[in-house]
Amino acid sequence: MQVTGKIDEIRQWTAQARAEGKHIGLVPTMGALHAGHVALIEAARRRCEFVVVSLFVNPTQFGPGEDFDNYPRPFKQDIAICERHGAAVVFAPSPSEMYPRENLTWVSVSGITEHLCGRSRPNHFRGVTTVCTKLFNIVGPDVAFFGQKDAQQAAVIRRMVADLNMPLEIVVCPTVRQGDGLAVSSRNQYLSERQREDATVIYRALQEGRQMIESGATDARQVRARIEAVMGRVPAMQIEYVSLVDPETLEDVERITGAVLIAVAARLGPARLIDNIMVDSGKT
Amino acid sequence: MQVTGKIDEIRQWTAQARAEGKHIGLVPTMGALHAGHVALIEAARRRCEFVVVSLFVNPTQFGPGEDFDNYPRPFKQDIAICERHGAAVVFAPSPSEMYPRENLTWVSVSGITEHLCGRSRPNHFRGVTTVCTKLFNIVGPDVAFFGQKDAQQAAVIRRMVADLNMPLEIVVCPTVRQGDGLAVSSRNQYLSERQREDATVIYRALQEGRQMIESGATDARQVRARIEAVMGRVPAMQIEYVSLVDPETLEDVERITGAVLIAVAARLGPARLIDNIMVDSGKT
Repeated sequence: MQVTGKIDEIRQWTAQARAEGKHIGLVPTMGALHAGHVALIEAARRRCEFVVVSLFVNPTQFGPGEDFDNYPRPFKQDIAICERHGAAVVFAPSPSEMYPRENLTWVSVSGITEHLCGRSRPNHFRGVTTVCTKLFNIVGPDVAFFGQKDAQQAAVIRRMVADLNMPLEIVVCPTVRQGDGLAVSSRNQYLSERQREDATVIYRALQEGRQMIESGATDARQVRARIEAVMGRVPAMQIEYVSLVDPETLEDVERITGAVLIAVAARLGPARLIDNIMVDSGKT
Repeated sequence: MQVTGKIDEIRQWTAQARAEGKHIGLVPTMGALHAGHVALIEAARRRCEFVVVSLFVNPTQFGPGEDFDNYPRPFKQDIAICERHGAAVVFAPSPSEMYPRENLTWVSVSGITEHLCGRSRPNHFRGVTTVCTKLFNIVGPDVAFFGQKDAQQAAVIRRMVADLNMPLEIVVCPTVRQGDGLAVSSRNQYLSERQREDATVIYRALQEGRQMIESGATDARQVRARIEAVMGRVPAMQIEYVSLVDPETLEDVERITGAVLIAVAARLGPARLIDNIMVDSGKT
């Protein structure tokens, strides 16, 4: 496995792989790799002969007061994980390699970025879409892999790729969970043992929502109230949102029909946690 | 020469050319081709074995009340010109092929889009950068060719390509002028015979500006005043701006040093005309 922080070098390597007829898969990450990322790397290896993992804590997607400085950067450990799971190349650029001058050009998606996390993180998705555009242009992947845990990010990226005719396919892989249901996340390591225990209420609450819908509930407000009540049993949990939305437009639904995405965000001590599940109501 | 309006088809053709080791040159146009476009096609042929000319009057770069509906669309004539000058392919999509759903994703460049034409055409450059991104993603050119007559457009595209690491080179070709100095433009055909005659004052005024600077003038305000005075001899000419700007940032300069771009925009009857020249003051 090769590792570089240089754009010129990664371009040479992917051009070479392309010339050899290999398909190129990209797994864009901020590092601090966990079982969720490993599932993405493995999905990429099943689809593509040449897998690139990028490790880049992208400053432009963090807002003021967010955890950019504290975001974990266990570089050596990340490299070992990429190697163990068969990545061909790790691309780990510095901020100045990615942003060598004042960045004047932004890729932004309106509408679907304004719901859910977009409400509390106003420039977050603009940073994500811009850095993903840069990574796609640098690496030139045939397929890029994202996790369903970041459901809004996945919907936004899909829409960007469609609107701008980007020549690649987006694959979204299922959320990886621990035995007790907690979605794995780099930010889980901010949690104390007690908070880690408390955090499991999020998935239990989502499951109660699922059961209500599968038992016939069609009023989104009632389902939301139940989920909030379950999460509210943990006093330290500060709910940011519990939303039932259309999986594509991410607009709130009132009456539940077809597939619905239940998405939640909450603060627990130092961590902001998000999770979601897709539920098919079976109703038209 | 082949002609298509379909994205899938142009992608197949350029993929084939790429597989044959050909370099792909793109000349993005809105059609109504003239000698300026011909110079771009010829420059593309000197650099690239496979030249694509796109013909697309892009609705998203026109503002309300602008000339989108009236913009000339002499399709057969354009095809003949492309054929005569050795284009391999013409890509002429419909608006619904390029924008099949509500467009939510925009590429925008701040700063350099806000000067000159950006003041009177607030969303124009966002439309240009978005459609160019789409065309680049569809065609996959090694080199794209633009004219210096649209100096601000060229500067904006260059900056976008650099900021987003787009994997292509931008070549800017000199402005093509008629014998009397008027820059060729698709919009010149809006002019009556008398207006066509009056329009030549623009280039004469720019040349007076050049002479002042080459004779040692360093006060941009004085040069601007002279250019405005020369253009003012044509009563029908409504000056929108006369600006002396840094060629890269497009910010106004007060004291002239190094290279300076003199850019003008004016209305003459039904036409909005723009022109510019680059002057090297020889001063540091």
